[in-house]
Amino acid sequence: MHRISVFLMLYSFAAFALAPPADEPLRGYTAEHSAAEVQWEQKFRAIPEPNRIREDMRRMSARPHHVGSPYDKDNAEWLLAQLKSYGLDAKIEQFEALFPTPKSRKLELLGSAPFTAKLEEPTLAVDPTSGQKSEQLPTYNAYSRDGDVTGPLVYVNYGAPSDYEQLAAMGVSVKGAIVIARYGETWRGIKPKVAAQHGAVGCIIYSDPKDDGYANGDPYPDGPMRPPDGVQRGSVMDMPIYPGDPQTPGVGAKPGVKLIPLDQVQTITKIPVLPISYADAKPFLLALGGPTVPENWRGDLPITYKTGPSKAMARLAVSFNWDRKPLYDVVATIPGSTFPDQWVIRGNHHDAWVNGAEDPLSGTSPELEEARALGELLKQGWKPQRTILYCFWDGEEPMLLGSTEWAEYHADELRQHAVAYFNSDGNTRGFFHASGSHSLENFVNSVAKDIQDPETKMSIWKRARLASLLQASPAMRAEEQKRADSRIGALGSGSDFTVFIDHLGIPTVDLAFGGEDEESGQYHSIYDDFYFYTHFQDTTFVYERALAQTAGTMVIRMADADVLPYQFTDEADTVHNYVTEVKKLADDMRAEIKDRNADIAAGAYQAAADPKKVSVPPPVDLVPPYFDFAPLDQASDDLTAAAAEYERAFATDGANGETAVNAELMKTQEALTDPQGLPNRPWYENMIYAPGFYTGYGVKTLPAVREAIEQKQWTIVDAQIARTAAAIEREVQVLKAATKILSGS
Amino acid sequence: MHRISVFLMLYSFAAFALAPPADEPLRGYTAEHSAAEVQWEQKFRAIPEPNRIREDMRRMSARPHHVGSPYDKDNAEWLLAQLKSYGLDAKIEQFEALFPTPKSRKLELLGSAPFTAKLEEPTLAVDPTSGQKSEQLPTYNAYSRDGDVTGPLVYVNYGAPSDYEQLAAMGVSVKGAIVIARYGETWRGIKPKVAAQHGAVGCIIYSDPKDDGYANGDPYPDGPMRPPDGVQRGSVMDMPIYPGDPQTPGVGAKPGVKLIPLDQVQTITKIPVLPISYADAKPFLLALGGPTVPENWRGDLPITYKTGPSKAMARLAVSFNWDRKPLYDVVATIPGSTFPDQWVIRGNHHDAWVNGAEDPLSGTSPELEEARALGELLKQGWKPQRTILYCFWDGEEPMLLGSTEWAEYHADELRQHAVAYFNSDGNTRGFFHASGSHSLENFVNSVAKDIQDPETKMSIWKRARLASLLQASPAMRAEEQKRADSRIGALGSGSDFTVFIDHLGIPTVDLAFGGEDEESGQYHSIYDDFYFYTHFQDTTFVYERALAQTAGTMVIRMADADVLPYQFTDEADTVHNYVTEVKKLADDMRAEIKDRNADIAAGAYQAAADPKKVSVPPPVDLVPPYFDFAPLDQASDDLTAAAAEYERAFATDGANGETAVNAELMKTQEALTDPQGLPNRPWYENMIYAPGFYTGYGVKTLPAVREAIEQKQWTIVDAQIARTAAAIEREVQVLKAATKILSGS
Repeated sequence: MHRISVFLMLYSFAAFALAPPADEPLRGYTAEHSAAEVQWEQKFRAIPEPNRIREDMRRMSARPHHVGSPYDKDNAEWLLAQLKSYGLDAKIEQFEALFPTPKSRKLELLGSAPFTAKLEEPTLAVDPTSGQKSEQLPTYNAYSRDGDVTGPLVYVNYGAPSDYEQLAAMGVSVKGAIVIARYGETWRGIKPKVAAQHGAVGCIIYSDPKDDGYANGDPYPDGPMRPPDGVQRGSVMDMPIYPGDPQTPGVGAKPGVKLIPLDQVQTITKIPVLPISYADAKPFLLALGGPTVPENWRGDLPITYKTGPSKAMARLAVSFNWDRKPLYDVVATIPGSTFPDQWVIRGNHHDAWVNGAEDPLSGTSPELEEARALGELLKQGWKPQRTILYCFWDGEEPMLLGSTEWAEYHADELRQHAVAYFNSDGNTRGFFHASGSHSLENFVNSVAKDIQDPETKMSIWKRARLASLLQASPAMRAEEQKRADSRIGALGSGSDFTVFIDHLGIPTVDLAFGGEDEESGQYHSIYDDFYFYTHFQDTTFVYERALAQTAGTMVIRMADADVLPYQFTDEADTVHNYVTEVKKLADDMRAEIKDRNADIAAGAYQAAADPKKVSVPPPVDLVPPYFDFAPLDQASDDLTAAAAEYERAFATDGANGETAVNAELMKTQEALTDPQGLPNRPWYENMIYAPGFYTGYGVKTLPAVREAIEQKQWTIVDAQIARTAAAIEREVQVLKAATKILSGS
Repeated sequence: MHRISVFLMLYSFAAFALAPPADEPLRGYTAEHSAAEVQWEQKFRAIPEPNRIREDMRRMSARPHHVGSPYDKDNAEWLLAQLKSYGLDAKIEQFEALFPTPKSRKLELLGSAPFTAKLEEPTLAVDPTSGQKSEQLPTYNAYSRDGDVTGPLVYVNYGAPSDYEQLAAMGVSVKGAIVIARYGETWRGIKPKVAAQHGAVGCIIYSDPKDDGYANGDPYPDGPMRPPDGVQRGSVMDMPIYPGDPQTPGVGAKPGVKLIPLDQVQTITKIPVLPISYADAKPFLLALGGPTVPENWRGDLPITYKTGPSKAMARLAVSFNWDRKPLYDVVATIPGSTFPDQWVIRGNHHDAWVNGAEDPLSGTSPELEEARALGELLKQGWKPQRTILYCFWDGEEPMLLGSTEWAEYHADELRQHAVAYFNSDGNTRGFFHASGSHSLENFVNSVAKDIQDPETKMSIWKRARLASLLQASPAMRAEEQKRADSRIGALGSGSDFTVFIDHLGIPTVDLAFGGEDEESGQYHSIYDDFYFYTHFQDTTFVYERALAQTAGTMVIRMADADVLPYQFTDEADTVHNYVTEVKKLADDMRAEIKDRNADIAAGAYQAAADPKKVSVPPPVDLVPPYFDFAPLDQASDDLTAAAAEYERAFATDGANGETAVNAELMKTQEALTDPQGLPNRPWYENMIYAPGFYTGYGVKTLPAVREAIEQKQWTIVDAQIARTAAAIEREVQVLKAATKILSGS
């Protein structure tokens, strides 16, 4: 479901020192175990075959397989059979969740030049699955409320909060209007949420050719980009409140579970929403009057983009079947030989919006190939020390339904047993990208050094790190001289890792390859299918194999270690950077607000205003007070010290297989959760990472503190600093206990 | 001819301290003279009338009036008659210059989908002068060589040197190709010059809707932006070598002057060039194959922009009448009563590409109104102390022909007598913008404080300074606290000031209002006419009046001062900043080249390369040596000290009318010229300001040093530092002499 960008990838992973991988035992392994492990891993990586992955994708993408569809269930049963055929102990765990599907959809431009939107993606002759009309979900945004609204249109750019500030400065209001927002920048679910907060009555979201259409390359089927009638489906559930079944927050939705009544659900939109193509959008955009938009609001249709309002009214009418649908999570278990109560979990979803070759099958198929390879290893005598779970989630697209309900249902076990969760989703050609818990940063680096990049034949680690140099700032270059590990990004949301890291505090990594092929052109459309993937994405499936090799090596190496290969100096360094960021954020906002207030007082806005245009100065803002960052500074320093202490003890005793320390290590990330959760969204318990309340998939680190500042909730900042610091101090205590065990004192 | 941008204006002028204007005598005036002067200036500013300016524009824009046209001469004679009717002593000074006009123009796309470009701007029913076909110059670029070339097409973005580096990185060559460049960013004459340097055989320049078409607002005649068939004419003479008549560099071209043979002229293009509309451009752009362009190369046509080459060949064939045409400069003289040998010169051109309402008549008409107002003052008994020249230049559009030939012809007199040149050109609604010699920065500030902005009723100085706050960096804000004068920009080229400041070293100011109306949409097209200006520009002509008030006040205040109101601490501060910039430039280039060389050696380009795309690493570059900036640092410090000394002496004795100091002051800016000129372009003698060799209109300050570094001519940098420092030291000596006179020691 999620998208990665080259920029993010290069920024977050990679850069920096090109030290050769040390020829010493794997972290957490005795010298003897390490030598054996290297053998098993090499055997493992030789097994996955591009052509098998290709055939798995072909099979699973042969028909539409969204939640509740016949082929969704069929795929689950097929996956189960495959896993069993590999000799694995597998089962389907069934849950259920609210999943609305369209009953009626209507979008019209009224007035003197009426137009009715087509709302239909045409069949393409060259694309064999594009004509499976009877099984395709229509174009819609899931968890839009029902509604039939009429109003003038207003263009709101990407529909982020700052876009409404810009509109206000131009004197344009969306009260009573239907907003038309373009896809991109901010996650789609933010668009109707913010629109409703500003008084809009409806929300249209369209794909501008600038963002994923002809501006970026030839449109499908000549090239990979979105064609004129292509539409991005997608969920607009208010996921920053909580993901998963809207009627059972925090509870695994087995049939018969108690449900919140529909009219009390917080995560359904407040206004009706509908996604459209740019062919459908053009007549609506042409109807807009008002001022010409600022330069960074312009799309690439051959028109003058204006804010509106339109003279002509628009009408948006949608209604849905508010049904609960079954979810089929497929789970294979390989019991651990030494530490069966320590679980290594691997997951990728199998449901799609339509045929879903790229999203998600380019991740699902490699995962299945990993499972096959593990089955082979088992037959060859391999015995993982820890228990391994291979999960194929259902219902990710509507909003992480299958993974969330499963993890909520198994929450107590997971808190006790999970040592890591490795997630993937869509995958294609290019550079290695990883994000996740920073206690696994060193682990991710160690695995990435052992995987060969199919194109350059250097390691995927080296390729990403070298390539990032070309975009590195001087500060990043300076860091490269001294930092052995490449940085990994932090996780927001957008795929099945969310419940694991954000709700349960389980060490998590999300990984993918990408950045060479345009990935977003058919995102969530009927054209994201086998023809598309095999013509415009990883056409030789070598990066599909690389994903299987990378994720599988992570699973095996985590499962076989004597001492869990967590490492905390990278984490402490990262947390220290976050603390620096939120302090700077407060200082910057204070300076900006002071300057703006001074400009208002000086009459700068009057001076800059063009009397032929409406121009509204911003309101005078309260200057932020100074905050007590001392607890956070202290906690960050304490974590730095504790991480270094642990590392010293580990260097001495870690390689001796002091497995008694594992029980403490397993508590380090959970320590960072707070059962009270984030302000106004208690489901999110992780005090270090969360999806942003106004960014959706985009991460906010130290979220309680950062968002309180960003949202100008000055009175709660100090308390959130204290809570966040306390969480870090809890980890410090756990680390000290672990160190004590290691050093035997 | 030139364009100003809001950004430039706000950056260069404005920002900073909002100290109230001091209630003390005007700089350079005794208290008594100052009081009288204030009265005369107020009387002057009450005279100009928007409606008269409007009628002057209507009269002069009634027919096309390019160089050599009947109406160009008619306008000159009308201007002469007007000036005489104001009681002024006026004459026409006739020169002549090479001015090619089209004999034939042909642009074709060959191959399977042939297309012939229309090359014609259609008549619009609502626009009464758009149909004057028999008198309009066709769409063309003046000083393109003749040629008939055929080759594949390559898109080169704006055609700047960096664009060719990008093409090289993508493995695309323009050797033997016809390049298609879009207008904008770099001056048009740079495009064919750089294309030819890279082996192209022809150059097409088109107006992309992103740059001045529908992306920015409604197209004409519904709005101010360029319509599909609108074309920007313009000169592509290699002006950075020298402007003016190509056959008489450095010599005033009176009839009978000795001419350089045409085939030895350096400033005619090396390859044929033709400008086209975006309607004509679209089929050529659609024919391009090759890779999709980088994001910042994309225009706003609804196509996938690609670099090319095209499979289909294109043919470009142009030929010209290489005639010499008469130039009619109209000059009115008001003799000075006290210092008749000190000349204050005011100028604006009167020729246009077609009807030229905005360019240049929105500057010409206010200038004429100033002359009328000065005539009124003279009748009321005003006697300027200095001689005043009001000049209306011919032939600016082909490339500053009238002003350059006049100033070259009068060069010796001007070096002796000129104390200031005040230039204007196109003008419209908005913010005050001034650029020029920094010894006049304080003077410009003092005048701007006395002119009322028509819209906000605050001073034009205060408006620009306040408005700039909204875009000010923290450094600019900090400066605002301590710097009383707003900064003015430095002058490159693009209007008639060029010969005065760059060739002769005369203190110069160029001024205009703008930034509220889109000014560029009809630039150099048949639609830049009275209908356009009176519907979409300064429709009430109040900023036309403001220009007359501002420029006229500058002229009067400069003419009446006892001691010339030059001020040098602002200049020294600015020169110090330039020195800091060129030192940083050298350091930055050294660091960048080192980093890039290191990346090449490390294999970063191989790591980043997508094997499905052509990707060529840059060549290893010589690391720049360290340069001896000491002479420039010393000169800058000496100037700072000398300026401060002068200011102290002036504060004591300047207001006592020590007019003996004027003779020294008049040498201060000429001291900055070097008769040997810039490397490879000796016509440019000013060592502080020049148009960039690869930017055209865009200025390069400390040009000999800056361009030697930018162009990687490492071996000449030290010598250029020494020459530039010597020029500054010459000014220091003059300033010391002036200080000595003032302090009587």
